[in-house]
Amino acid sequence: MEEAGRIDHLSGERQKAQFDLQPMKVLLAGGEHELDVAQRVAAIVARDPVFSKANRTRLSREELYKNSLRKASHGWKLIQQLKLTEEEAFKLRSLVDEPTFTDLHWGMFVPAIKGQATDEQQKYWLPLAYKMAVIGCYAQTELGHGSNVQGLETTATFDPATDEFVMNSPNLTSTKWWPGGLGKASTHALVYARLITDNHDYGIHAFIVQIRSLDDHKPLPGVTVADIGVKFGNAGYNTMDNGLLRFDQVRIPRNNMLMKLAKVTKEGKYISSDVPKQLAYGAMVYVRQSIVSDASVYLSRAVTIAVRYSCVRRQFGGQGNDPETQVIDYKTQQHRLFPLLATTYAYRIVGQWLKWLYSDVMNRLESHDFSTLPEVHACTSGLKSLTTSVAADGIEECRKLCGGHGYLCSSGLPELYAAYVPACTYEGDNVVLLLQVARFLLKTLSQLGGGVKPVGTASYLGNLPVLTKQGSRVSQGTDWLDHSNLLYAFEARAARLALVATQLVQKAGNEAGFEQHSIELIEAARAHCELMVLSKFVERLQRGVPGRGVQRQLDILCEVYGLFLLVSRAGDFLSTGCLTPTQVALAKQQLQNLYTEVRPNAVALVDAFGHTDHYLGSILGRYDGDVYPNLYKDAWEEPLNKTVVTDGYEEYIRPILQQEFLTSRKARL
Amino acid sequence: MEEAGRIDHLSGERQKAQFDLQPMKVLLAGGEHELDVAQRVAAIVARDPVFSKANRTRLSREELYKNSLRKASHGWKLIQQLKLTEEEAFKLRSLVDEPTFTDLHWGMFVPAIKGQATDEQQKYWLPLAYKMAVIGCYAQTELGHGSNVQGLETTATFDPATDEFVMNSPNLTSTKWWPGGLGKASTHALVYARLITDNHDYGIHAFIVQIRSLDDHKPLPGVTVADIGVKFGNAGYNTMDNGLLRFDQVRIPRNNMLMKLAKVTKEGKYISSDVPKQLAYGAMVYVRQSIVSDASVYLSRAVTIAVRYSCVRRQFGGQGNDPETQVIDYKTQQHRLFPLLATTYAYRIVGQWLKWLYSDVMNRLESHDFSTLPEVHACTSGLKSLTTSVAADGIEECRKLCGGHGYLCSSGLPELYAAYVPACTYEGDNVVLLLQVARFLLKTLSQLGGGVKPVGTASYLGNLPVLTKQGSRVSQGTDWLDHSNLLYAFEARAARLALVATQLVQKAGNEAGFEQHSIELIEAARAHCELMVLSKFVERLQRGVPGRGVQRQLDILCEVYGLFLLVSRAGDFLSTGCLTPTQVALAKQQLQNLYTEVRPNAVALVDAFGHTDHYLGSILGRYDGDVYPNLYKDAWEEPLNKTVVTDGYEEYIRPILQQEFLTSRKARL
Ligand SMILES: Cc1cc2nc3c(=O)[nH]c(=O)nc-3n(C[C@H](O)[C@H](O)[C@H](O)COP(=O)(O)OP(=O)(O)OC[C@H]3O[C@@H](n4cnc5c(N)ncnc54)[C@H](O)[C@@H]3O)c2cc1C
Ligand SMILES: Cc1cc2nc3c(=O)[nH]c(=O)nc-3n(C[C@H](O)[C@H](O)[C@H](O)COP(=O)(O)OP(=O)(O)OC[C@H]3O[C@@H](n4cnc5c(N)ncnc54)[C@H](O)[C@@H]3O)c2cc1C
Ligand SMILES: [Ca+2]
Repeated sequence: MEEAGRIDHLSGERQKAQFDLQPMKVLLAGGEHELDVAQRVAAIVARDPVFSKANRTRLSREELYKNSLRKASHGWKLIQQLKLTEEEAFKLRSLVDEPTFTDLHWGMFVPAIKGQATDEQQKYWLPLAYKMAVIGCYAQTELGHGSNVQGLETTATFDPATDEFVMNSPNLTSTKWWPGGLGKASTHALVYARLITDNHDYGIHAFIVQIRSLDDHKPLPGVTVADIGVKFGNAGYNTMDNGLLRFDQVRIPRNNMLMKLAKVTKEGKYISSDVPKQLAYGAMVYVRQSIVSDASVYLSRAVTIAVRYSCVRRQFGGQGNDPETQVIDYKTQQHRLFPLLATTYAYRIVGQWLKWLYSDVMNRLESHDFSTLPEVHACTSGLKSLTTSVAADGIEECRKLCGGHGYLCSSGLPELYAAYVPACTYEGDNVVLLLQVARFLLKTLSQLGGGVKPVGTASYLGNLPVLTKQGSRVSQGTDWLDHSNLLYAFEARAARLALVATQLVQKAGNEAGFEQHSIELIEAARAHCELMVLSKFVERLQRGVPGRGVQRQLDILCEVYGLFLLVSRAGDFLSTGCLTPTQVALAKQQLQNLYTEVRPNAVALVDAFGHTDHYLGSILGRYDGDVYPNLYKDAWEEPLNKTVVTDGYEEYIRPILQQEFLTSRKARL
Repeated sequence: MEEAGRIDHLSGERQKAQFDLQPMKVLLAGGEHELDVAQRVAAIVARDPVFSKANRTRLSREELYKNSLRKASHGWKLIQQLKLTEEEAFKLRSLVDEPTFTDLHWGMFVPAIKGQATDEQQKYWLPLAYKMAVIGCYAQTELGHGSNVQGLETTATFDPATDEFVMNSPNLTSTKWWPGGLGKASTHALVYARLITDNHDYGIHAFIVQIRSLDDHKPLPGVTVADIGVKFGNAGYNTMDNGLLRFDQVRIPRNNMLMKLAKVTKEGKYISSDVPKQLAYGAMVYVRQSIVSDASVYLSRAVTIAVRYSCVRRQFGGQGNDPETQVIDYKTQQHRLFPLLATTYAYRIVGQWLKWLYSDVMNRLESHDFSTLPEVHACTSGLKSLTTSVAADGIEECRKLCGGHGYLCSSGLPELYAAYVPACTYEGDNVVLLLQVARFLLKTLSQLGGGVKPVGTASYLGNLPVLTKQGSRVSQGTDWLDHSNLLYAFEARAARLALVATQLVQKAGNEAGFEQHSIELIEAARAHCELMVLSKFVERLQRGVPGRGVQRQLDILCEVYGLFLLVSRAGDFLSTGCLTPTQVALAKQQLQNLYTEVRPNAVALVDAFGHTDHYLGSILGRYDGDVYPNLYKDAWEEPLNKTVVTDGYEEYIRPILQQEFLTSRKARL
């Protein structure tokens, strides 16, 4: 975001742009209103000294954690004082840019209550949660079970004598492990446990368990709770108190079981409710949708930093008094960077579509139309998996694109990566999720014979006979700029890979075959997901985008996104016979031509994300490009530089230099 | 390494192995003697409490740095007291497993003096360096220039009046920036600077500059020196004092210029020596060779952790009372993990070959045979680039293979990655290095016409006419187990990609064409490097390996290495017409069969690396597989757990829970 300053080393770059910034910003933000909210809240956060991130990677864990509580508390105060709307409050929390307990309270605890509590229960818990009279976390994962939720071992045994559930951790591996906000902050936990009543194990259900006193914050009797320790990165996710939790026969009222989908009576009878189980489903779509949007945001931060610094950084070339070449002008740098820029735009657009999908699903659920759920489930799982993996790798690639300086925390990139990368693991391990997509594809294909028409993002599979036979029409380079040709190639590849995998599984006889051919299944699933992103991008462009030059830039980025993937996955396209080597070669050429078109717009295209210098937290990515003086200045903030002669010199360095060890050796000889 | 203990959760896995461990250990260590040294020194380091790594990620930078000085000092003392050989001392430093100033002293400062100082200068400096009466670092990179060494801006201007050089930092970007050991520890720096005499700039030369007092360690007059600040990772590379350095007209004796290759006389005359410049070359081969060996070691640590934990970790499956499936049994897990295991072995073998190559080069240099230098340069640059990139990515993949628990520092994996990944950047940015390989390939191909026969790792290019025409003979799956078929496919791919790139560049007219087609050039270079690794693996196996079952395991790993690459880069093989889709499909199948053969040997194959629990520093990778109790125990070491009610509760959490902000809002309304 523009900030008043004396210099702008990048103004030359900004003048080159061939499109208007404002409409592009509106598009990326998802509307005028959203942009306005984002800009207002960003300005509040950026100017507030409490939210400063300057010193973050230099703090000890205790200081870091305490400072993060301070930010959370200050944020909550501002939300009240400035009477922010829910939307604005959400924006504020995310722009503060530190994982903290409120993420879980608002992002998991509250939605889970909405999804799984009865209306009456909601009436009790939601007001408490909304005013944060309780602080909640989401305690599902255990030391021994993460992906396999059905294998959780914590028990909730009903005791009709007292009308209570007894929460217990029967063994070490049943220790709750990982829940964010649990370790130090939460007063309540939404605990997933095996419901046992009448000597029968009814499987995993959700319970609200108070774990700390509301008076003095001490753990309640029978509750063992602590932080699980240091995680990846200097600051990163270490502002979060991911915790462990053990119950030694802790009693909670029967009514603390969330009973929308099933209940236990006073007498200990288990009764499934007639509310369709699928109703709980909306929450997951919501969470996944926000993860996909975040993927775009996080990647866009790294891309902003790498693009700006690549314009500032000059290395080689430049005869005589000419300046050296900006590293962004090297083709290899462009080939690593511009596809990531394009991917950021693509994910932004698919994220916006998921937002629409969420409301569509909610409407359908309301009218008990569950027909699209399997497709929606596959689609959100797959997009979560694809976008988080690509965004994490992309952030690291952006760091490497900055050479040595990218390795300094003051570049902002190491922390961005460390804080982001667990998104590949939480809310579903990315490989496990792709296997679920594969299962859906398998089912869709095997039902085709029975005349079941695939819907939504799978509808292209209805065109299987054509897709598996007919090749691509591309005969010259510019044909690749026709989006329908791109789309056809991606559809054909996804369809053929899915068909091959399905046939392998069917030949082996289903369940064992699924395991045995999971490598092929994963490949098919990935192809399906990459197609989804491309097709949503193409669809969005078909609707048209206003603003001078904006549609043109988006066209280019869409083509870069598609062609880069096509070229990277050429093995898929060629081995399934979707494309010929010549068509792939034409795609390569075309892609390189497109880089030349992206080049003059690169800085403006990242400016359009609208990140403040506060939010980026990067000296290399500063809006004004004033990199070197600020790197130099920042080094002096390093605590090691407080003394000129280092602590440890007397004990450890002086004896080496003054040959004390050598002498002692000689003496012994 | 086996350690006495009560339990071994992995003993069942160990019993499955189909080969003898000892001869495999000998092979990996590079000989009986090397294995013996490694084991003896590893035992010394592992049992010494000063070298404990237990608390490393919980220390502040100051504590961490001081503790690292303590380890370096203690190590040096042990080296003296135990009268360790140079080889043992080297091993000790690497097994202490913390980047520190001695790495640069022994690894860069000393070799640079050997390579660039005259005999007389060596007689003066080497004894001082050997007994560490001076501590040296390697100060090349500046704030403004890293890759482009010729662009460095520090000046060394000769003043005949005093027979001194005047070292100066004329502007901000000339500040030395990054040298390890510079920030806090070194007394001397090997400084690269522009030599100016007689008003003429003779370009970059090396100078030894004392920067700190040998009495009290204070920076000398005119010297500004400090640490550049926090880097990626909690501990990671932060045990190192990468530094900044500025000179304000600092005078050094003329004789501190390293004068083997050129000298300046008392009168200020610049004279090139008749010693061939190439002699300086041996040092670089040496450093690159050790980087390639390290790539294998670092990757082997991550693979050891991921393999062992994947056997301990069970998730899904297991009906009734059966245990769940070990995640190592999932095909997708194997497909991500076993190729990395194979890669570790492949890199170990190519590293051993590079060791031989180094002595070969040194012998040739001695007899002024420079004929192999261009090939050796390409080969070491390329292997450095390939192996460090793959090892870094592979470490992260191993971390992800451990699910959530891999994200904890107690897994050892986050720090391993953070400390290793800069190897992709230092000693030559990996992309810049591949471009140098490409330049060599280009030259080799363009000289073919003139009848110049390519040598060494490039000799396959002499077979260009065949390689570019004749396809692969593979007609059934098992044909892929014939190593000559594998090799042929890789040679054909590398040759064809090189030819295509060369033709593109030639068509464009050389220098501009090189820039313009750098993407294709990089692809050709990568293919060339991947071939080198495979061919050295195959050659090694042809010489035969003793020990029950050992050769068989290595055969399998070689095939996994080759086939995995082939399948991942199918696009290359198919688009150049080296292989047909059917041949690629056969390779895929064969690869999956091989995974089944690797599976029972997986734990033994990582045991063979011989890493101690100390060196691994990983609860997930413990030799005994006793993961869960130790994760739990370790969590309680977290400083945040020192208090039950968190510091910050009173100021920040209590006011939220007790509605203080809400109340104040209401009051204002
Ligand atoms: C930063 C962070 C925050 C978290 N926050 C929370 C929280 O607030 N609340 C909470 O309850 N949990 C939380 N978690 C836990 C998280 O949800 C789990 O780590 C995640 O679900 C992955 O499960 P896992 O760790 O058991 O992985 P595992 O399932 O053990 O995965 C290990 C390996 O096995 C593979 N694998 C597993 N099953 C299969 C299969 N069927 N087929 C093929 N391969 C398989 C995986 O791909 C992976 O490679 C958090 C985790 C992290 C890292
Ligand atoms: C942990 C660490 C330790 C170090 N230790 C030392 C030390 O002890 N002594 C010392 O002197 N230095 C040291 N360095 C510095 C290191 O050697 C440099 O960072 C390295 O050489 C890379 O140079 P750079 O940072 O200038 O990258 P840059 O050259 O600025 O690279 C930025 C980007 O530009 C691209 N690029 C650059 N040139 C070209 C080109 N011609 N064509 C295409 N793309 C190009 C690169 O690929 C990269 O993507 C260290 C660095 C690190 C991170
Ligand atoms: Ca710290």
